[in-house]
Amino acid sequence: MKKLIECVPNFSEGRNTGIVEEIIDEVRKIEGITILDYSSDKDHNRTVLTMIGSPERIKEAAINSARKAAELIDMSKHEGAHPRMGATDVIPFTPVAHVTIEECIEVAKEVGAEIGNWEIPVYLYEDAATTPDRKNLASVRKGQYEGFFEKINKEEWKPDFGPQAMNAKSGCTAVGVRVPLVAYNINLDTPDVEIADKIAKKVRHLGGGLVYVKAIGLKLEERNQTQVSMNLVNYEKTAIYQAFEMVKIEAKRYGANVVGSEVIGTVPMKSLLDAAEYYLQIENFSMEQILEKRLLDEQ
Amino acid sequence: MKKLIECVPNFSEGRNTGIVEEIIDEVRKIEGITILDYSSDKDHNRTVLTMIGSPERIKEAAINSARKAAELIDMSKHEGAHPRMGATDVIPFTPVAHVTIEECIEVAKEVGAEIGNWEIPVYLYEDAATTPDRKNLASVRKGQYEGFFEKINKEEWKPDFGPQAMNAKSGCTAVGVRVPLVAYNINLDTPDVEIADKIAKKVRHLGGGLVYVKAIGLKLEERNQTQVSMNLVNYEKTAIYQAFEMVKIEAKRYGANVVGSEVIGTVPMKSLLDAAEYYLQIENFSMEQILEKRLLDEQ
Repeated sequence: MKKLIECVPNFSEGRNTGIVEEIIDEVRKIEGITILDYSSDKDHNRTVLTMIGSPERIKEAAINSARKAAELIDMSKHEGAHPRMGATDVIPFTPVAHVTIEECIEVAKEVGAEIGNWEIPVYLYEDAATTPDRKNLASVRKGQYEGFFEKINKEEWKPDFGPQAMNAKSGCTAVGVRVPLVAYNINLDTPDVEIADKIAKKVRHLGGGLVYVKAIGLKLEERNQTQVSMNLVNYEKTAIYQAFEMVKIEAKRYGANVVGSEVIGTVPMKSLLDAAEYYLQIENFSMEQILEKRLLDEQ
Repeated sequence: MKKLIECVPNFSEGRNTGIVEEIIDEVRKIEGITILDYSSDKDHNRTVLTMIGSPERIKEAAINSARKAAELIDMSKHEGAHPRMGATDVIPFTPVAHVTIEECIEVAKEVGAEIGNWEIPVYLYEDAATTPDRKNLASVRKGQYEGFFEKINKEEWKPDFGPQAMNAKSGCTAVGVRVPLVAYNINLDTPDVEIADKIAKKVRHLGGGLVYVKAIGLKLEERNQTQVSMNLVNYEKTAIYQAFEMVKIEAKRYGANVVGSEVIGTVPMKSLLDAAEYYLQIENFSMEQILEKRLLDEQ
């Protein structure tokens, strides 16, 4: 039963490949870490790294890559379209196998404390947050790097770790814990984005729809179609097939049809096996019947 | 990319737990072998072991357990309801990850050759068979232990390995290779087993239905329902959802309804993810998007 945590640090460098590779190299050096993906966006001037490992190794990987980012990135010269406040902007941890949210919070705190030791202010967010205000990353990051020189002086924004003073070179860093998120889009045959938007509003939490669904309507210009673009923030409670069926039901009233769907990025197999179980009406199904689950559990 | 082969040896001992445990212990000793399951049936007087490992380790596990079975089981005293011809009755190998059928056949031949060295006649079967007659295990085993003292003298039943003379204590052994099999049952609301049987005959290969489906109709006495009980012998070509939809279509003509289905034992995740992909109409889906696949591939 190998404990596994996913970590998706975001670094404020997406243009200088040399710097990005030096940061990723810090992770490559660590045995037992699986790099699932890393990609840089030039407009955002930002790199997103997705990696998985044991609690001990993932902590090491997060700390070493953040240390290298603090060394190589100068936030006083950073420009980019994406909101950001630090060289290592955010470090979210997510439980993958045989670990609890609490164990992830422990890891987040140890990483935060270490980064604080480098004179970089650190805020814990989402499930690791120490106050309700800090749960939402957008609230924490509001004002961004430039605004933080003032914001940090307010009593309610005293960092969880590190000095109550902005680090001009490295900015500050948010370290958090969140449940796994599934990005899932449903494509409609209508070119009318208003219809997609109305459907999105009806199926999402805010509109009284499914509790763990965030959704917006988008236009797919090239296909002359539209899309309900969703984040399922707790796929164990609100399943993919529920979102799919709800969108179909709502689409009907506009005479629109679902023409397909997309799963974005990497997802846990359970998020899709739930759909197989539902549509095939499988009785007494257990994840222990999945060969790959058994193989991973044995390790 | 770890190469993995599954092996499901059947031993002709299901009553004496001491003997069964001694045989399984031979496998437990080998590092890197995952025992998925083993179960003994007293009526059959037979134990079925399911294990997975690298080609090198699985070969070792098959040989060592068969050697222990040859030592501890005396076929001249064996009684049981299930057809059998040897102490280690059959040893089928199945590719699980990053191995070809050919590599499995190589392993089967090495295991067969070693067992032959112990003066036990060995027949290669299914995809490892050396003649068309030997493909079907039932044909190979016909006559069983008792009949083999004569059968083995016929030229067409000269063993692939070992002597052309029956081993009175250990019998003979079939070593084979087969693609993974998914056991899948669909339950109907009708108590009329004739309807289930007619549906089975229409959806299976023999009846002109789906190529890789074997099916029979069964009565579920306790539920007062019936079942189409199937083996999907190549789930990559004939998917579970196809079998499910075909049974639904056939049931309609009798006014019968599908009330549920069952997956029996352990199955590869792809066999069920195919159904999620189909019913959710997922575009451009790749198995690389499954977290667990990535984790296993990294090893």
